[in-house]
Amino acid sequence: MNTFGHILRLTTFGESHGEAIGGVLDGFPAGVRIDLQVIQSWLDRRRPGQSSLTTQRTESDKIEVLSGLFEGSSTGAPIAFIIRNQDKKSEDYEHLKNVFRPSHADFTYQAKYGIRDYRGGGRASARETAVRVAAGAFAYHILAQIQIQIHAFVSQIGNLKMTEVPGNLTEELIESNGVRCPDVLIAAQMIEYIEKIRDQGDSIGGVVSCCIQNTPVGLGAPIYAKLHADLAQAMMSINATKGFDYGDGFDGLTLKGSEQNDEWINGKLTSNHSGGIQGGISNGADIRFRVAFKPTATISKSQKTMNLTGEQVDLSAKGRHDPCVLPRAVPVVKAMAALVIADHLLLNQTVSIK
Amino acid sequence: MNTFGHILRLTTFGESHGEAIGGVLDGFPAGVRIDLQVIQSWLDRRRPGQSSLTTQRTESDKIEVLSGLFEGSSTGAPIAFIIRNQDKKSEDYEHLKNVFRPSHADFTYQAKYGIRDYRGGGRASARETAVRVAAGAFAYHILAQIQIQIHAFVSQIGNLKMTEVPGNLTEELIESNGVRCPDVLIAAQMIEYIEKIRDQGDSIGGVVSCCIQNTPVGLGAPIYAKLHADLAQAMMSINATKGFDYGDGFDGLTLKGSEQNDEWINGKLTSNHSGGIQGGISNGADIRFRVAFKPTATISKSQKTMNLTGEQVDLSAKGRHDPCVLPRAVPVVKAMAALVIADHLLLNQTVSIK
Amino acid sequence: MNTFGHILRLTTFGESHGEAIGGVLDGFPAGVRIDLQVIQSWLDRRRPGQSSLTTQRTESDKIEVLSGLFEGSSTGAPIAFIIRNQDKKSEDYEHLKNVFRPSHADFTYQAKYGIRDYRGGGRASARETAVRVAAGAFAYHILAQIQIQIHAFVSQIGNLKMTEVPGNLTEELIESNGVRCPDVLIAAQMIEYIEKIRDQGDSIGGVVSCCIQNTPVGLGAPIYAKLHADLAQAMMSINATKGFDYGDGFDGLTLKGSEQNDEWINGKLTSNHSGGIQGGISNGADIRFRVAFKPTATISKSQKTMNLTGEQVDLSAKGRHDPCVLPRAVPVVKAMAALVIADHLLLNQTVSIK
Amino acid sequence: MNTFGHILRLTTFGESHGEAIGGVLDGFPAGVRIDLQVIQSWLDRRRPGQSSLTTQRTESDKIEVLSGLFEGSSTGAPIAFIIRNQDKKSEDYEHLKNVFRPSHADFTYQAKYGIRDYRGGGRASARETAVRVAAGAFAYHILAQIQIQIHAFVSQIGNLKMTEVPGNLTEELIESNGVRCPDVLIAAQMIEYIEKIRDQGDSIGGVVSCCIQNTPVGLGAPIYAKLHADLAQAMMSINATKGFDYGDGFDGLTLKGSEQNDEWINGKLTSNHSGGIQGGISNGADIRFRVAFKPTATISKSQKTMNLTGEQVDLSAKGRHDPCVLPRAVPVVKAMAALVIADHLLLNQTVSIK
Repeated sequence: MNTFGHILRLTTFGESHGEAIGGVLDGFPAGVRIDLQVIQSWLDRRRPGQSSLTTQRTESDKIEVLSGLFEGSSTGAPIAFIIRNQDKKSEDYEHLKNVFRPSHADFTYQAKYGIRDYRGGGRASARETAVRVAAGAFAYHILAQIQIQIHAFVSQIGNLKMTEVPGNLTEELIESNGVRCPDVLIAAQMIEYIEKIRDQGDSIGGVVSCCIQNTPVGLGAPIYAKLHADLAQAMMSINATKGFDYGDGFDGLTLKGSEQNDEWINGKLTSNHSGGIQGGISNGADIRFRVAFKPTATISKSQKTMNLTGEQVDLSAKGRHDPCVLPRAVPVVKAMAALVIADHLLLNQTVSIK
Repeated sequence: MNTFGHILRLTTFGESHGEAIGGVLDGFPAGVRIDLQVIQSWLDRRRPGQSSLTTQRTESDKIEVLSGLFEGSSTGAPIAFIIRNQDKKSEDYEHLKNVFRPSHADFTYQAKYGIRDYRGGGRASARETAVRVAAGAFAYHILAQIQIQIHAFVSQIGNLKMTEVPGNLTEELIESNGVRCPDVLIAAQMIEYIEKIRDQGDSIGGVVSCCIQNTPVGLGAPIYAKLHADLAQAMMSINATKGFDYGDGFDGLTLKGSEQNDEWINGKLTSNHSGGIQGGISNGADIRFRVAFKPTATISKSQKTMNLTGEQVDLSAKGRHDPCVLPRAVPVVKAMAALVIADHLLLNQTVSIK
Repeated sequence: MNTFGHILRLTTFGESHGEAIGGVLDGFPAGVRIDLQVIQSWLDRRRPGQSSLTTQRTESDKIEVLSGLFEGSSTGAPIAFIIRNQDKKSEDYEHLKNVFRPSHADFTYQAKYGIRDYRGGGRASARETAVRVAAGAFAYHILAQIQIQIHAFVSQIGNLKMTEVPGNLTEELIESNGVRCPDVLIAAQMIEYIEKIRDQGDSIGGVVSCCIQNTPVGLGAPIYAKLHADLAQAMMSINATKGFDYGDGFDGLTLKGSEQNDEWINGKLTSNHSGGIQGGISNGADIRFRVAFKPTATISKSQKTMNLTGEQVDLSAKGRHDPCVLPRAVPVVKAMAALVIADHLLLNQTVSIK
Repeated sequence: MNTFGHILRLTTFGESHGEAIGGVLDGFPAGVRIDLQVIQSWLDRRRPGQSSLTTQRTESDKIEVLSGLFEGSSTGAPIAFIIRNQDKKSEDYEHLKNVFRPSHADFTYQAKYGIRDYRGGGRASARETAVRVAAGAFAYHILAQIQIQIHAFVSQIGNLKMTEVPGNLTEELIESNGVRCPDVLIAAQMIEYIEKIRDQGDSIGGVVSCCIQNTPVGLGAPIYAKLHADLAQAMMSINATKGFDYGDGFDGLTLKGSEQNDEWINGKLTSNHSGGIQGGISNGADIRFRVAFKPTATISKSQKTMNLTGEQVDLSAKGRHDPCVLPRAVPVVKAMAALVIADHLLLNQTVSIK
């Protein structure tokens, strides 16, 4: 259950305070030139300690590629890579050894497996997403060959929302502020709000939006592997997610069919309520979707919970936790989107005999 | 790509106006007594022609079981079943042969495969969901052995929303009105609204909510097969869906961590913002999620589109189409939930050696 | 566990004396013209009652296609088909209801599932192979587009062996006698021998050999899905098989490396000890493999066994059983080979980005 | 295509002269105590340089576990491990850079992928089997909990064959000589023969036999995942294999049904022609199978071949190659058997609802 994808398949492993986390990316096509500096730059966007909005842990998150590349190109063999865990302060977690954090995986892991690596959250740690980011960065090399672009960004924090996606969405614009929101005015408010929440020992959630540009027509599948169904699973598999929608999504439900259908005029689509996908298959328009992330479960405010033997406990979590995961979730959403799109590009090649 | 599930795997087939639609349900445990009348009753809830709110096509949707049962019980062999297509009026679709309906799968199927069974929407027809309903009804027999219950219902049509889920949610209450909304006052408004929309030759969307009760602790998986990720894919694979969220979902994003975390008091959860799932694994509380459905794409109002050769066309769809898919989507959501939960029950048995 | 294949995936169902047997062939490429008479002709080669060497049951084995074809071509949707069970004499099996036939699946099915459809052998019946033959015949339409040919034939019955494969191997030659051995002199001896065995109420096994011609270079995969490993699983999944080898196989073990290696002279392979596969990937030479089939377990000679409660029983099986499955296994081996090769053709298209 | 197994799934990676080889073992049940010294001892049996019969490369093959264990037990999380490549003499392979070794993967990899890591054979190297051995050793910990034992041994080298498997088969007996044949008289002849072949710069093949004891009744599946079909694929996926059979296999084809069927007398099986599997499901008797390995393709004798541009070349391979892979293949066969059996133990738990 630690494998994702149909043809391009990512298998991941690793606990937060174990030796290393890592992944094996199988089904990667041969002959693609890989720029490891690009991979590292994706990881750098996700790693902790980037700004005042995120955890102050400092992990260098250096990728070490073990296989699958030869003289700078993919060979068709599985690409394996690891990221060593360095800044492990397992003693920060000693007080969580016998206590279940509210709304965290602590309890459910213990119940399911009867054993739990509590150090740093173990396998449940968001640290696992670093592997997704590295894998997505590899996948992006495939997409780049045909000029597909993916932009993920923060569009909502608490009740602070962007009202409109700017037409000239670029990575530079998204990276222009610490919260990764391309609307710089709202971004400033978001940053102020997150800092306030952080100082309260609390946390806050929000929405990461994503736009995939220049996708060819025909990616996806009619029934269970609908492109948006695969995107939904990909996104909902990221830690702390609570919802997914695409195109007009939940917000468009008040529109009638005649208002929400995308008409063609002179062979061109005049709107994109569909979010670039019809019947589970890309129609060539931008693919647009949103992912909801809840507030971080681990907070320093005191909360009522129980310990391993079911006794009542008050818990104020120590350690270094993000007050808001959204800024660091941006590269994760982008990476998962890259994996899904690359996978469906490969899958699409099996639809007819060449 | 027509198979769904890990251990309990449903493979489906069939076009709307072909010979039959059907499915093969593999991995079904042996020795479960099956009541075919229950299966048929699920199908009867989904079939067309039930009320003024739905299409006037009349399909009896009689299930024919071909294999996998012996003397009333499952044998561990695959359960195959078909549903013959009867009320085929393919001539209703002759005018769609060369035209792409806006926001429909017509264009994307043609582009992907270079060939398309246009009659009745072919494989893209919502008729395919009948197979899911039958399969889900089989799966429900597994859940019933341990008293798991699933209630799906309409909670929103256009901007008409239920404000609160009644405590005494029952199938009888849900079935007490044509729109399958357990709040009978809102239900009456919804019905009136859908009839108005229908008379305009238009369509409207909404939300199906679902509540799974009495789920054991421990279903799900840590990373890619998180219970909510599998539910998301299951739901987003249903025709016309636009969004999925669980627990507080999109609506809870304004709450802080201290407000959204579920605390334990005396070993009991005092709230359920999590929607019954933490870290991808069920925690024993009710599993609550929502699914957004867009307005039916096929409407009789005139729309601008293009034909196979890219020429401009005005299209007013003929045929018998639902002005609102929500009432008939209720049993589909329930069925997909049953498949996912049964699958994870089986999968959970592999977590330790017995 | 009733699904076979990576991209081209066959899911099968059905018990020998149930309503029908059938299959769903998913991942079949779009736009392939299908000749249903060819499919039926493959089934006719496998069906019972063809000659004195095989069971005298008469099943017409008429295929009924339910989905996936439109105006004579594949659409990319799953191809589902059923074959009704007609000549069911379940009373022939009443005496086997509580008794385990020696070396048959009776005991193991009962032990594994706690329930068993004993009529006609249920799911364990070789009747299931009819579905494989139909699916293989569909797959063969893909291979025919690039002139790949597959010839399967009987090369050994008991200790009667062909010494050499004729250079001009054709389907006509194979079909020229009832035992499907292209060496007509040995064939006559085989037939005489099988008839003698049959008259003794006994059974005999042998070898089906297979030669795949005109395969492109590059089919297969380096590690677990080696072309010969997939062929091995495909063949060993056929009822009554006991062994598989390819190229020189078991018989070549006495040769040294210098004798068994295939050298290139002037860019041409001068021998084919490898059987057309090196490192798990086809090298363009003929793919040659053998499949061993044991004697039919169900014989009319008296045998010692036990019943459901473990008591000692003498059993003389009634009913109509093949004294030798080999002649009817020939189209099954051919069909499974066609499925594997077509699957790897599709898979090979994902190795690079086009 | 680098993943093996249904529930217990091994994904492997790594090239012979890359940074490391390794694997991820997913689906491993929680709470199993792991003895890493046992894992290492399995690897030590496979590593090069053990005797005069094998290659003189010296790889310490030290396993480094990266994840999935906590305080000595499995946690249900994926177990990842790597083995660093140490004794890399890539210059030994420089002369093979542009030349295809006869009957090796060199040509087919190049043709399939258009690129090839020629150093040490890259991904095609038998070094990959070290990962299988480590994974199998983990799996064996599951089997040990219910006293399942697996013994693999050399039963044939060239035309030197063991005539009978000793009743008291033990690992000590198998390990008592360098060729790992439990018949010490034949073993001595085998060793002498291999040394002679080695001195000729040539190579020789043979058979590894395997016996799985104390298997519960009920492992396997009726159709495509028949226990022997999964074993066949597992074994045929090992480098240099040419054939697989089980029970009486190819050698039993001369026996009639009345001679080959296993009768029950007083509820006990009196013979084991079936090799412990009937209808694809284990019957509780010892599982017995054989695997044929061809002579090592890489030999120092001069051979005719071609280079990358198709020109005629004479090749005498340098480097350190095994004259006979059989002794080192023994732990690989055992490991793959352990993986298959453990996988089916887990799978069997999904057959009914507990």
